[in-house]
Amino acid sequence: MITEVARIEIDPADAAAFEAAVAEAMPHFRVARGCRHFRLDRSVDRPGHYQLVVGWDSVDAHMVDFRASNGFAVWRRLTGPFFRTPPQVDHVERAVEGF
Amino acid sequence: MITEVARIEIDPADAAAFEAAVAEAMPHFRVARGCRHFRLDRSVDRPGHYQLVVGWDSVDAHMVDFRASNGFAVWRRLTGPFFRTPPQVDHVERAVEGF
Repeated sequence: MITEVARIEIDPADAAAFEAAVAEAMPHFRVARGCRHFRLDRSVDRPGHYQLVVGWDSVDAHMVDFRASNGFAVWRRLTGPFFRTPPQVDHVERAVEGF
Repeated sequence: MITEVARIEIDPADAAAFEAAVAEAMPHFRVARGCRHFRLDRSVDRPGHYQLVVGWDSVDAHMVDFRASNGFAVWRRLTGPFFRTPPQVDHVERAVEGF
């Protein structure tokens, strides 16, 4: 499994509307093939900065299968208008298991 | 609870040594007051890029209590020499609970 981490910046005045849009898009991730978990975190230091964290079976499950799906189109339609800049997307895997 | 997210960049050639240093520093987080969880994730897209993810009772538990502690000094002594640039630290909280 890998985890998608997308850093997103929006206008802080739109925070409530953006978070509602993400919640509205969530069911499309829940049914996406290879999607394991989904959440949105907001920065407490920098208003308007968010981190979308989504677990996938593989990078391809996200970048190939999901990006070609209707679910991605819905996600972008609902949330894209809020993005101040293109989200910065990274895929991470565990390096130190920790506690 | 809040989560510290520190983005760290190192020389990819030092990956194994850096990850070992983080594992060596981990016990100092385990005993730190107000520390809830700890892990290190590595980027699969960009070698040498990491995300340290640490849960704390509050921002102050991290920025005031831990940063003044011996544990932080040990962390910095073990891992600081690997940093290519100062880590970019953010604190996040849940915005959309997800699944």
